[in-house]
Amino acid sequence: MGKAGLRVSIIGAGSAVFSMKIISDFCKVSSLSDSNIVLMDIDKTRVENVLVLAKELSQYFGAKLTFEIADTIKGAVEGSDFVINTAMAGGHGYLDLVRSIGEKHGYYRGIDAQNYNFVSDYLNLTNWNQMTLFLKIARTIEKYAPEAWYLQAANPVLEGTTLVSTQTGIKMVGFCHGHYGVEALAKFLGVSEYEWQVGGVNHGIWLTKFTTKEGKNLYEEIEKVAQNVKYEEFKPSNPFDDQLSPVAWEMYKMYGLFPVGDTVRNSTWKYHRNLETKIKWYGAPWGGADSEIGWKWYVEQLAQVVNVIDMFAKMLRSGVKINELKTGTPIDDYLKEILSEKLSGEQHVPFINSVVTNTPGRFVVNVLNNGKIKNVDNDVAVEICATVCGEKFEFEETHVPERIVNWYLKPRILLAKQALDAFLNKNVKLIADILERDPRTKSSEQVEKLISELYPIVIKKAKEIEEQE
Amino acid sequence: MGKAGLRVSIIGAGSAVFSMKIISDFCKVSSLSDSNIVLMDIDKTRVENVLVLAKELSQYFGAKLTFEIADTIKGAVEGSDFVINTAMAGGHGYLDLVRSIGEKHGYYRGIDAQNYNFVSDYLNLTNWNQMTLFLKIARTIEKYAPEAWYLQAANPVLEGTTLVSTQTGIKMVGFCHGHYGVEALAKFLGVSEYEWQVGGVNHGIWLTKFTTKEGKNLYEEIEKVAQNVKYEEFKPSNPFDDQLSPVAWEMYKMYGLFPVGDTVRNSTWKYHRNLETKIKWYGAPWGGADSEIGWKWYVEQLAQVVNVIDMFAKMLRSGVKINELKTGTPIDDYLKEILSEKLSGEQHVPFINSVVTNTPGRFVVNVLNNGKIKNVDNDVAVEICATVCGEKFEFEETHVPERIVNWYLKPRILLAKQALDAFLNKNVKLIADILERDPRTKSSEQVEKLISELYPIVIKKAKEIEEQE
Repeated sequence: MGKAGLRVSIIGAGSAVFSMKIISDFCKVSSLSDSNIVLMDIDKTRVENVLVLAKELSQYFGAKLTFEIADTIKGAVEGSDFVINTAMAGGHGYLDLVRSIGEKHGYYRGIDAQNYNFVSDYLNLTNWNQMTLFLKIARTIEKYAPEAWYLQAANPVLEGTTLVSTQTGIKMVGFCHGHYGVEALAKFLGVSEYEWQVGGVNHGIWLTKFTTKEGKNLYEEIEKVAQNVKYEEFKPSNPFDDQLSPVAWEMYKMYGLFPVGDTVRNSTWKYHRNLETKIKWYGAPWGGADSEIGWKWYVEQLAQVVNVIDMFAKMLRSGVKINELKTGTPIDDYLKEILSEKLSGEQHVPFINSVVTNTPGRFVVNVLNNGKIKNVDNDVAVEICATVCGEKFEFEETHVPERIVNWYLKPRILLAKQALDAFLNKNVKLIADILERDPRTKSSEQVEKLISELYPIVIKKAKEIEEQE
Repeated sequence: MGKAGLRVSIIGAGSAVFSMKIISDFCKVSSLSDSNIVLMDIDKTRVENVLVLAKELSQYFGAKLTFEIADTIKGAVEGSDFVINTAMAGGHGYLDLVRSIGEKHGYYRGIDAQNYNFVSDYLNLTNWNQMTLFLKIARTIEKYAPEAWYLQAANPVLEGTTLVSTQTGIKMVGFCHGHYGVEALAKFLGVSEYEWQVGGVNHGIWLTKFTTKEGKNLYEEIEKVAQNVKYEEFKPSNPFDDQLSPVAWEMYKMYGLFPVGDTVRNSTWKYHRNLETKIKWYGAPWGGADSEIGWKWYVEQLAQVVNVIDMFAKMLRSGVKINELKTGTPIDDYLKEILSEKLSGEQHVPFINSVVTNTPGRFVVNVLNNGKIKNVDNDVAVEICATVCGEKFEFEETHVPERIVNWYLKPRILLAKQALDAFLNKNVKLIADILERDPRTKSSEQVEKLISELYPIVIKKAKEIEEQE
C-alpha cells in the first residue's frame, strides 16, 4: 500500500452519523483525501442520502474523494484496501423483536441481557444475524481482496473479532470508542493533562494506567473521591451519561480499577434486575441507556437523525450548501463538528493513515489476545492499547489485576465462547444450557417455550442474511 | 526416604471406614508394614476405637505397624514423612447447619449447591472451616516437617489442593476414588479387559481414553448404547449408584465424553432444581445422593457405622478376635474386604509405596495444572493420570475437548477461584457477588439477609479451627 487512490468500502453506510464522521475524517487527512469510498447498505434510500452528503462534504473541504455505491458485499469488497463494517443486519427491528420475545418469557430486557452483557445493541445469544454477516464479509474478503484490512465497527466487537480472527485468515482489527470515557473522569477530577491506558475486552475495559504527565498516580485522586461520592447526587444529562454513575464507583470498589465507557453499562445482573434497580444505579429518570426508557430515548433519537438526514439530502439536492444546513436541534452541533477541522474521534481513518503512510499512531484495538493480557485465553479478542505503524502493531504491556480477570473478564469471555460455539454449530441446545443457568430462569419448561418461539426467528434471519448477495 | 519405619500421620483418623482401609493397606504392602502410624482426631472416643481396631488389624496380618495418638496437628505432623488429611472440620453438623440456613433463604440444598457443585460434602462457598484447616496443616508441615508429603483426601479436593499448592511450598497431592466409576461403565458394556484414562478436575473428570487391550475405541460401544438407552428403566441400587443414570448419558451427549464418578453428581443446575427433577435424572426413590432423601440415607449409614465401630472396639477390648466380628449388616462385607489380601482401592498407600520404594505405579492425582490440560488455568489443581516413581511424576498426555473445557471445566474452575479469593481475603462481599448470579436468587435483599445470618457462623467456625491446637 502507500499508493494514492485507496479504495475503502463502508458496509452499513446508511448509518449516516457514523458514515459522515468517517468521510469527514477522510477529507481532513490529506494523505487519504483522494480515496475512493464505496458505500454499501441494504437500505437504498439511506445510502443515496449519505452519498449526497458525502459528495458535498468532500467539496466543502476541497478533498478529492470519489464515491460509488455497491449493491452487493462482493461489489463492495472486491479491489478494496480497507473494509469498514458498521452494519446491523436486520436493524433495530430484529433487535426489538428478539428482545420482546425474551421479555414475554420472563427475561427482562431479553435473553441477551445477561451478566456482563447489558449493552442493548450487543446481542450475544441471538446475534446469528451479525455473526453470519461478519463471516460472510470476511470470507468475501478472503476470496476477492485477500490483502485488505477488515475493520470491525459493528457490534458485537468481542464476538465478531474473535469469530473472524479464528475462522478466517484475513487481516482484521476491531474498533470501539468507549475509551473516551476517560475524558469524563479526568474532567470530573479537574485534570486536563494526563496519561492513560485501558485494557480488557470490548465493552469491558478498565483504566489500567492513569497518571499526570509527571507520573503521579491519579488513582490517588479517584480513591479520595470514592470515599465521599454521594450516589444520590448523581444526575445524568442523558441515558448514556454513566461514566460517573453510582455503578461506576461500585465497580471501581469491587474490581479495583475504574471501568471505562460501555463497561459501566456492561455490569452484573444485580445492577439491572428491574427498572427500579437500574434507576438506583444509573440515575433518574432513565436508569441508563439499556432500560426500557433509556433505550426508547435512544431509538427516537436515531429516528430523528434519519429524518434530518433525509431532509438534509433534499436540501442539498435543491442547491443549499452544506454549511447552511440548520435544524435547531442538537444535530446542528454534530454538523458543526463534522465541518470543523477536528477529527471525529473514530479511530478508523487515523488507523488507515498509520497503516498506509507508516505514521505511528496510538490506538485502542481489538485483536486476538495471544498472551497480551495474562491469564486470559489466547484465542479471544482483547481490547488493548497499541502503537500502529505500517502493518506493525506494538502492544503496550497491560496489567489487568486478577480480581478483574477472575470476576469480570473470564465470565464475560466464557459467555462469548459459549455463544460462538452455539452459533458455529447451530446448536440451540447449547443456548438452552446457557439459559438454564440464567438467574431469570425458573424452570426448564420456560427455557423450552422460549427457545421454540425465538430460535426459528433467529435461524430464519441468519439464513436470510446468508442468502443475500 | 526409602528408610524403614516410615512415620505417617492420619488427620481425621476418627473416620473409621477410611482409616481402616488405609491401615489395612499398610499391613498388606510389605515394604510399609513396619510404619509408625499417627492417628489424630478431635473426637477422642472415635480415634481410641480406631486405635483398637488398627492394632488388631496389624496383628491379624502379622504386620509390624506401630501406632500412636496425637492430640495436636503439630504433634501429628512433626517428624512425619507423610500426612494424610481426611478431616471434616466441624463434621456433618456444620454442613447441615450451613445448608439449612441456605434453604431457609431460598437456596435449595444450600448455597454451595450451585452449578457444577452438587456433591453434598463439597462445600464451596461456606467451606472456610476446611480451607482454614488445610492451610493450618500445610503451614505446620512447612515448619515442622518440610520434607513431608501432604496427601489431601478431605473435600473439597479441587479447592484444597489449589489453595495449599499456591499458598505454601510443601509437596502435595490430592486423591479421590471417583475414577472407579469406569468399572461400572465397563461392566455395563460387558467389557472385562480395557485401557482407560480420565482427566479434568476433582469431581469433574471425563473418560478421555477407553479402549480394548487391542486398541479398539470403546466409545463406539458407548455410542451404540446411548442411542437406545431407556431412562425410565434406570433403577439405582443406592443413592450413589449414578454412573449409568440418565444424567450421565445426557452429560455424555452434551459434552462428548463420559463423565466419571462424582462428576455425575456434579452436573448443572437443570438436573437439580428440585426433588422431582433430581428423581427424574438420578432415579427413584432417592434422586441421587445429594437430594434431601439420598443424603439422609447416607448420614444414617454413617451413624450406623460409628455405632458398629464403637461396638467392635468394645468386643475387641473384651477379647473377641477381629475375624470373629459380625453384625449381620453390610458392614460385615466391608470387614471381610479389609481382612482379605486385596488392597482397598484407596490410592494413598500404593502412592506412598511408589514414592518410598521407587516402584512405578499409576495413579489419578490432583496437582496444579501448569500446562497439563490445555486451555485450563495453570494455577489450579487438575485431576489427571500419572505414573509415580520415587518423587517423579510422569503425567499422561490428556486431551480434554473444548466443549468440556468451555462448558464444564472453566465455569467450575472460575467458581473455585472466586471462592478462594473470598476465603483468602475474608471478603463476604465477594460471596454476595457470586450469589447475585445464582439462578435461585430473586433479589439483592435475599442475598443480604442470607449473608447476615450465615456468614457470622462461617467466620466463627473458621476462627475456632484457627485457634485449635
